[in-house]
Amino acid sequence: RCHHRSPAMLDVPFLPFCAFLGALGLLCVAMVGTWCQHWRGGFSLDGSSRTFNWHPVLMVTGLVVLYGAAALVYRIPHTWSGPKLPWKVLHGSLALGAFVLTVLGLAAVFCFHNSQGTPNMYSLHSWMGLGTVLLFSCQWAAGFGAFLLPWAPTWLRALYKPIHVFFGSTILMLSVASCLSGINEKLFFSLKNGTMAYKLLPAEAVFANTLGLLILIFGVLVVAALARPSWKRPDSNSPDSRQVQDALGG
Amino acid sequence: RCHHRSPAMLDVPFLPFCAFLGALGLLCVAMVGTWCQHWRGGFSLDGSSRTFNWHPVLMVTGLVVLYGAAALVYRIPHTWSGPKLPWKVLHGSLALGAFVLTVLGLAAVFCFHNSQGTPNMYSLHSWMGLGTVLLFSCQWAAGFGAFLLPWAPTWLRALYKPIHVFFGSTILMLSVASCLSGINEKLFFSLKNGTMAYKLLPAEAVFANTLGLLILIFGVLVVAALARPSWKRPDSNSPDSRQVQDALGG
Repeated sequence: RCHHRSPAMLDVPFLPFCAFLGALGLLCVAMVGTWCQHWRGGFSLDGSSRTFNWHPVLMVTGLVVLYGAAALVYRIPHTWSGPKLPWKVLHGSLALGAFVLTVLGLAAVFCFHNSQGTPNMYSLHSWMGLGTVLLFSCQWAAGFGAFLLPWAPTWLRALYKPIHVFFGSTILMLSVASCLSGINEKLFFSLKNGTMAYKLLPAEAVFANTLGLLILIFGVLVVAALARPSWKRPDSNSPDSRQVQDALGG
Repeated sequence: RCHHRSPAMLDVPFLPFCAFLGALGLLCVAMVGTWCQHWRGGFSLDGSSRTFNWHPVLMVTGLVVLYGAAALVYRIPHTWSGPKLPWKVLHGSLALGAFVLTVLGLAAVFCFHNSQGTPNMYSLHSWMGLGTVLLFSCQWAAGFGAFLLPWAPTWLRALYKPIHVFFGSTILMLSVASCLSGINEKLFFSLKNGTMAYKLLPAEAVFANTLGLLILIFGVLVVAALARPSWKRPDSNSPDSRQVQDALGG
């Protein structure tokens, strides 16, 4: 084993931390749903702003919370022994679920813009967000090709693994930054005049700002958990396992 | 030594990478200055939007670029041998410079709001940004107290060091997310009607969106450089040096 150990006083057990993260993620999903339902008119598929409302809900649920869950799979100590394939399938499936929600979230905003005659892809939020989704699609496809296809050569896995790990954290940071700029932008759009102006900080603004900060804390804690040396697989530096090949008889 | 080594093909020498980062950081500073000078009317201290223009320039220069330079000091291989105190002083001084620019950047936006009668601290951008600056002030003060004061006990240094390192990267991520939401928000404020509307993507919008993406890339690369195991001090896990005490005869 080759770990940089933190002083004992800072040691936190992974599973309770993970349960806290799960509760925080669920709170974020509940809050973004409440925001859209209670203040923004709820949900529909008619191309109105009620269609747009699927966008924040699907993005927070998919690209932040479910993505975070997928990223943390290999930090569960149970995954460190026994066959690796089931955990790879779980990791890939959670990430695929996150990706599907993300694509539906993109469809919601494009559908809303198109039915309103609003141009797509002009704001920094949209550039950053689409860049994040494109990186995520490359990440998923490359991860599938390198780690789940049984004929991927071991040298390719070893070469690609640190890249996959790096982009795993990076994409989550980009997701969170995209969510925050999107919430900020939506509040400026929605809260304009009179007693509801964003600058007067009505209840909706306090609620959605708080949601933004909770998403930020969730993202920071997931990235911190991923980076923590003592929570990594002890053999994380060995050439990537050949267990897919073994399991599939390759 | 206890490193997780990446495959040789991924090895990048630190100093050329650092020179590239420096050029990218300077480009970001030049671009935010150009944006405010060329499209937003330039700079003044009269409380108008020309006073506001100091805000993005000082924040990008201080809280992103100079902060990034401060964070990378201990990754320079020259700092790994010989007395540590001069490098500590350099790290703390660069961070202090970044902090001073940041406070001036805050002063610019508060002065602009107050002279225009606009409320302060209502948007998610402002909450996130002020939170980032508050964390940064705690980080600087705690770093000074723990690592530069010669009477700080060794156990305190060892306990606090991983916390300082963690918040070092986290604050930079928060800075970048704050900058991006700020650029996005400013473009919605400034580009409203007619042929200049943000949604029509005029030259200013393309320029400032590109600036946002470059700031994002700068931040991701600095955080990646900080996290890279082979660029860390080889003795990074030993109880923090007593070289300040030694140098000061403590």
